[in-house]
Amino acid sequence: MVSAALLSDFATEIIIPVCAVIGIFFSLIQWALVSRVKLTPDRKGPPNTNKNGFNDSLIEEEEGVNEHNVVLKCAEIQNAISEGATSFLFTEYQYVGIFMVAFAILIFLFLGSVNGFSTKSQQCTYDTHSLCKPALATALFSTIAFVLGAVTSVVSGFLGMKIATYANARTTLEARKGVGKAFITAFRSGAVMGFLLAANGLLVLYMTINLFKLYYGDDWEGLFEAITGYGLGGSSMALFGRVGGGIYTKAADVGADLVGKVERNIPEDDPRNPAVIADNVGDNVGDIAGMGSDLFGSYAESSCAALVVASISSFGINHEFTAMCYPLLVSSVGIIVCLITTLFATDFFEIKEVNDIEPALKNQLIISTVLMTAGVAVVSFIALPSSFTIFDFGAQKVVHNWQLFLCVCVGLWAGLIIGFVTEYYTSNAYSPVQDVADSCRTGAATNVIFGLALGYKSVIIPIFAIAVSIFVSFSFAAMYGIAIAALGMLSTIATGLAIDAYGPISDNAGGIAEMAGMSHRIRERTDALDAAGNTTAAIGKGFAIGSAALVSLALFGAFVSRAGIEVVDVLTPKVFIGLLVGAMLPYWFSAMTMKSVGSAALKMVEEVRRQFNTIPGLMEGLAKPDYATCVKISTDASIKEMIPPGALVMLTPLIVGTLFGVETLSGVLAGSLVSGVQVAISASNTGGAWDNAKKYIEAGASEHAQSLGPKGSDSHKAAVIGDTIGDPLKDTSGPSLNILIKLMAVESLVFAPFFATHGGLLFKLF
Amino acid sequence: MVSAALLSDFATEIIIPVCAVIGIFFSLIQWALVSRVKLTPDRKGPPNTNKNGFNDSLIEEEEGVNEHNVVLKCAEIQNAISEGATSFLFTEYQYVGIFMVAFAILIFLFLGSVNGFSTKSQQCTYDTHSLCKPALATALFSTIAFVLGAVTSVVSGFLGMKIATYANARTTLEARKGVGKAFITAFRSGAVMGFLLAANGLLVLYMTINLFKLYYGDDWEGLFEAITGYGLGGSSMALFGRVGGGIYTKAADVGADLVGKVERNIPEDDPRNPAVIADNVGDNVGDIAGMGSDLFGSYAESSCAALVVASISSFGINHEFTAMCYPLLVSSVGIIVCLITTLFATDFFEIKEVNDIEPALKNQLIISTVLMTAGVAVVSFIALPSSFTIFDFGAQKVVHNWQLFLCVCVGLWAGLIIGFVTEYYTSNAYSPVQDVADSCRTGAATNVIFGLALGYKSVIIPIFAIAVSIFVSFSFAAMYGIAIAALGMLSTIATGLAIDAYGPISDNAGGIAEMAGMSHRIRERTDALDAAGNTTAAIGKGFAIGSAALVSLALFGAFVSRAGIEVVDVLTPKVFIGLLVGAMLPYWFSAMTMKSVGSAALKMVEEVRRQFNTIPGLMEGLAKPDYATCVKISTDASIKEMIPPGALVMLTPLIVGTLFGVETLSGVLAGSLVSGVQVAISASNTGGAWDNAKKYIEAGASEHAQSLGPKGSDSHKAAVIGDTIGDPLKDTSGPSLNILIKLMAVESLVFAPFFATHGGLLFKLF
Repeated sequence: MVSAALLSDFATEIIIPVCAVIGIFFSLIQWALVSRVKLTPDRKGPPNTNKNGFNDSLIEEEEGVNEHNVVLKCAEIQNAISEGATSFLFTEYQYVGIFMVAFAILIFLFLGSVNGFSTKSQQCTYDTHSLCKPALATALFSTIAFVLGAVTSVVSGFLGMKIATYANARTTLEARKGVGKAFITAFRSGAVMGFLLAANGLLVLYMTINLFKLYYGDDWEGLFEAITGYGLGGSSMALFGRVGGGIYTKAADVGADLVGKVERNIPEDDPRNPAVIADNVGDNVGDIAGMGSDLFGSYAESSCAALVVASISSFGINHEFTAMCYPLLVSSVGIIVCLITTLFATDFFEIKEVNDIEPALKNQLIISTVLMTAGVAVVSFIALPSSFTIFDFGAQKVVHNWQLFLCVCVGLWAGLIIGFVTEYYTSNAYSPVQDVADSCRTGAATNVIFGLALGYKSVIIPIFAIAVSIFVSFSFAAMYGIAIAALGMLSTIATGLAIDAYGPISDNAGGIAEMAGMSHRIRERTDALDAAGNTTAAIGKGFAIGSAALVSLALFGAFVSRAGIEVVDVLTPKVFIGLLVGAMLPYWFSAMTMKSVGSAALKMVEEVRRQFNTIPGLMEGLAKPDYATCVKISTDASIKEMIPPGALVMLTPLIVGTLFGVETLSGVLAGSLVSGVQVAISASNTGGAWDNAKKYIEAGASEHAQSLGPKGSDSHKAAVIGDTIGDPLKDTSGPSLNILIKLMAVESLVFAPFFATHGGLLFKLF
Repeated sequence: MVSAALLSDFATEIIIPVCAVIGIFFSLIQWALVSRVKLTPDRKGPPNTNKNGFNDSLIEEEEGVNEHNVVLKCAEIQNAISEGATSFLFTEYQYVGIFMVAFAILIFLFLGSVNGFSTKSQQCTYDTHSLCKPALATALFSTIAFVLGAVTSVVSGFLGMKIATYANARTTLEARKGVGKAFITAFRSGAVMGFLLAANGLLVLYMTINLFKLYYGDDWEGLFEAITGYGLGGSSMALFGRVGGGIYTKAADVGADLVGKVERNIPEDDPRNPAVIADNVGDNVGDIAGMGSDLFGSYAESSCAALVVASISSFGINHEFTAMCYPLLVSSVGIIVCLITTLFATDFFEIKEVNDIEPALKNQLIISTVLMTAGVAVVSFIALPSSFTIFDFGAQKVVHNWQLFLCVCVGLWAGLIIGFVTEYYTSNAYSPVQDVADSCRTGAATNVIFGLALGYKSVIIPIFAIAVSIFVSFSFAAMYGIAIAALGMLSTIATGLAIDAYGPISDNAGGIAEMAGMSHRIRERTDALDAAGNTTAAIGKGFAIGSAALVSLALFGAFVSRAGIEVVDVLTPKVFIGLLVGAMLPYWFSAMTMKSVGSAALKMVEEVRRQFNTIPGLMEGLAKPDYATCVKISTDASIKEMIPPGALVMLTPLIVGTLFGVETLSGVLAGSLVSGVQVAISASNTGGAWDNAKKYIEAGASEHAQSLGPKGSDSHKAAVIGDTIGDPLKDTSGPSLNILIKLMAVESLVFAPFFATHGGLLFKLF
């Protein structure tokens, strides 16, 4: 019944690294194209570079292209932002580095202790007739994989931040030539990050597997168990990236808005506001570096989950390398598909006016999904045997290749649906956000009530989409199905990240335009880019959450398999209390992060107020504010405040697993998963909707919107309050929850051998 | 091994109804004492009644006791409130009556169809060697029990509302004589409701069992299966009471506040505000009638869950009547314990000053819990055999009487802990609320962020308390343990309801004082009563939610037993998607209810604005507003808006059970339970905290509070916004979620025979 794959193992060995390298190469090209926009004012006359490969019809009208001062000013601001971001990330990495070392030691000790640090080969866990490498080896290699994952995550986030801060002023300058040019610059920069991250993640993982294989040889069970450390490393960095970055960005943003917009009545990103640089730095460290680490983590984890389950399925048992690498092949094809998709935005079509932006970004999602469906079909038919068996909680289940194809597709298309639903609920082109804007007529209270209700409502369809994906992929191929459905959702990660990173870059570009005192027209163009970016950011968060749900379920399944549990029965007290307490964790975590943002913002407010009150001539624009102190406040607050929520996430699986055992831990994982997804989606969408409701009133593009405006009206003030409340929801607590659910699952998986051996101390005692 | 109980069956038959009658009698005495305060101004001179059985030292100073006009005015306002409430409840009951008849028919048809409407006896479900009554009989008697439960719930809610509207003006008048007298009047009125409800619920249930027994004879399995309809009836009425009442009260409250306090800058409860009567009516129909129905539902359901599990345990198999009635005996003792507890508040101690109020209410909780522990010990040792067996998902588990004692106690004490935690997070005597108040300095946005964070944080300890109760009671006595733990938490329901109903009565009393133009001193006294009432209302909600969690778990267990499932394995796709979708339902439900309140409030705002703009002399107090139109708006909105959320709750189990089968339905129940509890607790506490943060600023009792005030300051305005947002959270969506989780569980239990036979159509087709 088991037949071989069409693709030879040798071809597989070639295809994966080649695709990864193509991805890296493509991102370098994009970077080169972005860098053609000069930030030094030495060029004379308008530029005649022909960036999108077509004619120059995009140059609607050029203004201020030759103003040297503006260029200088932009370069200066960019520098300040870049420096702030770099210095924050370095500070963050110092602390995180200490944690990383400590946790690496912990992993080694816990896993090494499973078999008393013996160096003797041991009986395999699943194939009890064979001998596997010692537990000590798994401990060592898991630790190495953990460090590799962490370093890759850090590098990805850092590079993303670098290119973003490199691109923001360039986007501003291009905005002088027209919205199309600016769009392409921002989008290309996003693509640099997207491709770098996707390709890097794949390449490092692939190389790690090949290196570990030198030791493990045919012991694939041990090999892929050790590989799971990679996912844990990626995700634990993402935790600090998301939480630390999230607190940083929102402390600055909320602080800046509370004094600037509300008290002093000066516009957003006004250079007189001392917190303005910190705010822009925040976009880069939170939304770019944090988001990058987050999605890298999801990607690494879903690959690891798929691989570990595959290793105990027929692929692993029969040592079919090509079939084993199916998840990596899907990701490889994904890179090529995203590459083609990117060309649609940058080269095949042009953005001629503001209204083209949102459709262009939306088309990216549709094109990549359609192309990827074809790509997955090809991979599924050439890389998989026509039928094989998959490990299904103790039994082996017969699966056909077309079923795996459907598993990947259901994830892929569920991602698209989640993206569209998110867009519907957060874009001000549709009635939900317009209703929220309308509720500002009666003040901030109704705005908040309607916004919260919108967020709650927006979970319905995504949850059904996730539920259908789970049901289909679970029924077809058990936990392996879930893992590759998650990979399917993430297979277009390069495009997803490109359109996601595009958002904060445009936001920064707008900020720089304002600070450099550029004309109203240019600010309008960057605002249009930014409004589309708000929606894509929400879509990106939708993807991140949807994939996180699938990934954690896959990891949960892998954990359960590894821990040797065959049933997680809700009708046992151990499991049920786990479920209940697990469902509570997202609330505990959110309480911590929101309070952190609140407290940090209050400190920022005090500092900004102090500067306005004590620096003479600041309000009049005669004196320069002290940006550095605000940057420092955000940095210190985020470093300090990320520890408690980080500890909650990292310690919960360890404590529950050690004291209460694997059944209760299973309950905790399932509970936090099903509850966290809801909180995360609703928080992100509520925040996105409030932000765009405010933008809707400000833009005044329809009669209805004008009746609510203009800026400074009572309705607008109510909308600003909503926006401010939404900031920590959508950029700190909401997206951090992805990590909570994923990280607890992957940590449980990595420590599963320990919990299975030594766990449940408390119940053993009584 | 199985020994008999000390208490004879005959004694049990006597004790239960006697305790219930004592409860009813006691509530009539309380009512008589309240009615001694005359609302007709024909008496001359200060009254010399000696209400609390002690001397008159409570009469600190009497003012305006002889002002006939004030008394007349109070009577008039009370009449308006009472009429509005009665007319709303009658309108509500008309619609609900139609639903009730339709649903009764549905129950009969669904359950009757289980065995094709056959009138022949059938094999018993559990004891397969015996013959039981036909399924048609179960259908008929379940329907009757449903109607009885519904009617009892309606009567309880209605009587509660009647006594509350009877007492509010009397409390106002007593406030002229001092805070102590006012407190006793309000508390006694609450006690009328508490005792009436607890005793009534017990008595009707007891009589129903005895009547059904005439037909069922020794078929206890069928008898107690039919009795579960009683819980379903009680809870489905509670759904409409809570949701309809919740929308009513908050539409009026938010609408009144948005125009009155925010736009027109007139105080709360100002008679010039056209929505003021609707607001006061709302307190009675939402907080009193709704809460009463809710807790009655919990009580009925936990009794039914315990009885149905007991009927298939050794009690039922061996026909041990006394042991079978253990849950009812616990409730009977609860009535006596609460009676003694009440005397501590009304007769044994006196309230001499404002600061005595909160401790007095808190002592009620402590005293009732301590006394009840002793009471439960007695009941457990005389009513239970020293050891017996309890049905545990297919097996029989040996249990000892002291284990059941511990099960009841763990629920009882968990309730106390939840009460205290709720108090800590919602009373302005502690730092959490003070921090929220402090965050108003920087505006409404930080207030909302801190308030949401507080609500999230406040779930931690209650969830641990519930988890421990579940673990202990589950481990000792499986689902029977959970059911009696829930009963333990609810055993002091009479006291719980008394202190809970005390809140809205005091709130109304304050409103009447304001509307009747009574002096500032009197308003201060009612405000103090009211502030304590806010906290007790939050505690009441905490109890309601905690008990709802235990009750639904017990019902869930009973459903699983009845549906013949032995394992609810999270690791099957059917169950997992149920879990995920179930966890989403509280969000969907909250979105509906919050949006309903928002829309209804907007309509109210328009009407109030219209009246202020078109009725000449209204602002100056020269003309009377048109209260009736506002009452009508609230009534119409709540009737219309309660249908979609009601349909969601009532239809979900039917659709899921019929189409997807009992496994998916189990997942849905578990998911909605673990997720709904969190949403409900956080929503209630956030709302309570905002309300008291506002009151904290208004009262200005400390230096810190004064620095935030006075009324009308920016901080106070920010606090008012928070309070308004919290209204639908704490009084509509939050508390309604109790019903969501309980009702879906009890409905599943009642329909379990149908689902087990005909359910899962979709999976059967494919």
